[in-house]
Amino acid sequence: MAKIMNNGVCFPKGFLAAGVKAGIKASGNLDLALLYTKEKARCFATFTKNQVQAAPVLYDKAVLAKTKFVNAIIVNSGNANACTGKPGDEDAARMAQYIEKELGLGKLSVLVGSTGVIGRKLPIEKIKAAIPALVKDLSGKNSKVFAKAICTTDTVIKTGSIALKTAKGEVRFGGACKGSGMIHPNMATMLAYITTDLELPANFSADFKALIDESFNAITVDGDTSTNDTCILLANGASGISLSDLSKAEQAKVRNVLFELMKNLALQIVKDGEGATKKVEIEVCGAKSKIEAMRIAKSIATSNLVKCALFGEDPNWGRIVSSAGASGVAFQPAKLSLHFEDIQVMEKGMPMGISANALRKIFKKKDYKISLNLHAGKSRASVFTCDLSYDYVKINAEYTT
Amino acid sequence: MAKIMNNGVCFPKGFLAAGVKAGIKASGNLDLALLYTKEKARCFATFTKNQVQAAPVLYDKAVLAKTKFVNAIIVNSGNANACTGKPGDEDAARMAQYIEKELGLGKLSVLVGSTGVIGRKLPIEKIKAAIPALVKDLSGKNSKVFAKAICTTDTVIKTGSIALKTAKGEVRFGGACKGSGMIHPNMATMLAYITTDLELPANFSADFKALIDESFNAITVDGDTSTNDTCILLANGASGISLSDLSKAEQAKVRNVLFELMKNLALQIVKDGEGATKKVEIEVCGAKSKIEAMRIAKSIATSNLVKCALFGEDPNWGRIVSSAGASGVAFQPAKLSLHFEDIQVMEKGMPMGISANALRKIFKKKDYKISLNLHAGKSRASVFTCDLSYDYVKINAEYTT
Repeated sequence: MAKIMNNGVCFPKGFLAAGVKAGIKASGNLDLALLYTKEKARCFATFTKNQVQAAPVLYDKAVLAKTKFVNAIIVNSGNANACTGKPGDEDAARMAQYIEKELGLGKLSVLVGSTGVIGRKLPIEKIKAAIPALVKDLSGKNSKVFAKAICTTDTVIKTGSIALKTAKGEVRFGGACKGSGMIHPNMATMLAYITTDLELPANFSADFKALIDESFNAITVDGDTSTNDTCILLANGASGISLSDLSKAEQAKVRNVLFELMKNLALQIVKDGEGATKKVEIEVCGAKSKIEAMRIAKSIATSNLVKCALFGEDPNWGRIVSSAGASGVAFQPAKLSLHFEDIQVMEKGMPMGISANALRKIFKKKDYKISLNLHAGKSRASVFTCDLSYDYVKINAEYTT
Repeated sequence: MAKIMNNGVCFPKGFLAAGVKAGIKASGNLDLALLYTKEKARCFATFTKNQVQAAPVLYDKAVLAKTKFVNAIIVNSGNANACTGKPGDEDAARMAQYIEKELGLGKLSVLVGSTGVIGRKLPIEKIKAAIPALVKDLSGKNSKVFAKAICTTDTVIKTGSIALKTAKGEVRFGGACKGSGMIHPNMATMLAYITTDLELPANFSADFKALIDESFNAITVDGDTSTNDTCILLANGASGISLSDLSKAEQAKVRNVLFELMKNLALQIVKDGEGATKKVEIEVCGAKSKIEAMRIAKSIATSNLVKCALFGEDPNWGRIVSSAGASGVAFQPAKLSLHFEDIQVMEKGMPMGISANALRKIFKKKDYKISLNLHAGKSRASVFTCDLSYDYVKINAEYTT
């Protein structure tokens, strides 16, 4: 397997990006981003399942209902353009139209993203004023600027890239994402933009959904699914290579490298979870179905009591079993076994008398795995979570003020 | 309506209580409690819906499957006797048997409760050794000692009482409960013991369940449903008055005072939520059904982002709307209205431009109400929640260590 590098969205051929300071953020930081491909890219997208969807999400869904091919995505940070009614819908459309006009593109060729505070009117005039500079800034060297301009409470930018050598030549994949709070997998749970110069067929959408489930849908920071979550994959075919040109084995490799890239980006979000000091994999195995395994894993991964114990390095593993029991999934407590890395603490539902000190060695790690086996079937799922720290409370108690 | 007083379980006639230090808690505090009525009391009980149920819960359910009349409840704090396998089941039975023997009671006349750390063997020998002193301590003046001996991380004891004058004479109700963390309403979500000297018929169980739904099931501290949750109502008939002796109007009053008592006890738990500095009512109205209203209210009431905003007195109300949208209940965002006490911030899904400063006056209160109207129907529900503070993290990061 090729290694994930940290080039971003411009790593595949034909993608340019830009980021400018439009004055949306009070901090004065980068807050307006643009991703562009001259050759139209086939677009695969998933959006939040939140009942309350932000204007840019509604706009993108409307565009993608009419066409699957776009040239650009404009994204602002600092304002979510959510709960903003009809004026918000109009502002989302305007953002796209400004770019279409400035770049001389046809209608329905630009998608829109927004992230930030909910329930405030978008300062559309500031965005309008920044458009010329934004378009002028487009370059193949702006992967990191793009990644920074889409950030809100993120403490680091999140980019990734990977190249795959095939018999037909090299194809490339790049990506950037943002997300730190209000992160919970119901599908895409943040903004993520993935690019590739491989040409992908329409029916790759099923593969994309499956990859989302195992990557961005398998992370949680705080159990809150946002109004703006978006994950978009743009395939512009600029490599001159199409998925159908490749052998079955190479096609499988494409899915694998794309999965590795998406998982890598998703884990960057967990690592940068608001206030997070730990990244922990919660694995549930021996389940009757993958859905049940996922439901239990998410119940554990979102338990505040569990997450405080992770933060405090407190080997209070009863909380993990209790959270599993509260998941709503039926299982036999008397069959459970529980491991922290290679240390087993429970067998057939009973404690094995492992000392807190022995366990604390695992809890002191920055990155480890907890595995609960239901001994009821052959399905498994993993969710990646972080701890709940003082800083999470601090960041979220002070967000708008 | 008569006023709730703070007498406890011994307020109704015929109930005695006790509390001693058995050495289960490392702190050396009171950790073994006993509630006793010489005349057998009809028992109404609800238990946790967690798939993983503690040994005392399983024991009580087995007893109550055979008889509805009991004389006593023994409760230990400091150890949950959960995830302890067959030895744990045996320990729970032993606790009951010790009391039956010491008090000369028949089989199946004592219930058991435990609360504390999960996954540790109960120190049954310490309990056995403390039984004679515990029984000797029984008195009608020990309501507060009982309430204290069932506490864990609680910072205050929680008792309540109310008397009702009827045409047949006075009937009394008393109660004690504990709970501070791992509190989330799936039904009873902590230990709560309610007593009355009114005789209640078997079919009062439906009323009891309805009262539970509006009181203990309508509170949340951290969204975690415990393995040990129990709410028991004991009616010993010592007043010489039976519910059926009363007029319809008086019977309704009985349900009302019992509801007020149970709600009062439940709110004492929210107020004492681990690290809590605020008690906030989340009301959802205009819903198509009570179930949907409750689901949305719980989604908001358990959102870490919302709870951090409550703590930080940060009027970031978009998080409330986003949590509602993430609840899984379908509604029309364009119809939503949102109030903080008497200040409306949203109408027909759009912000009304209320300044953060105006809102902050509400957020600075210790106790207030947030009301979301879906404008989709006539049903409503309220959930009572607290904020998420540094101290919640501190308490739960350091619990067992």
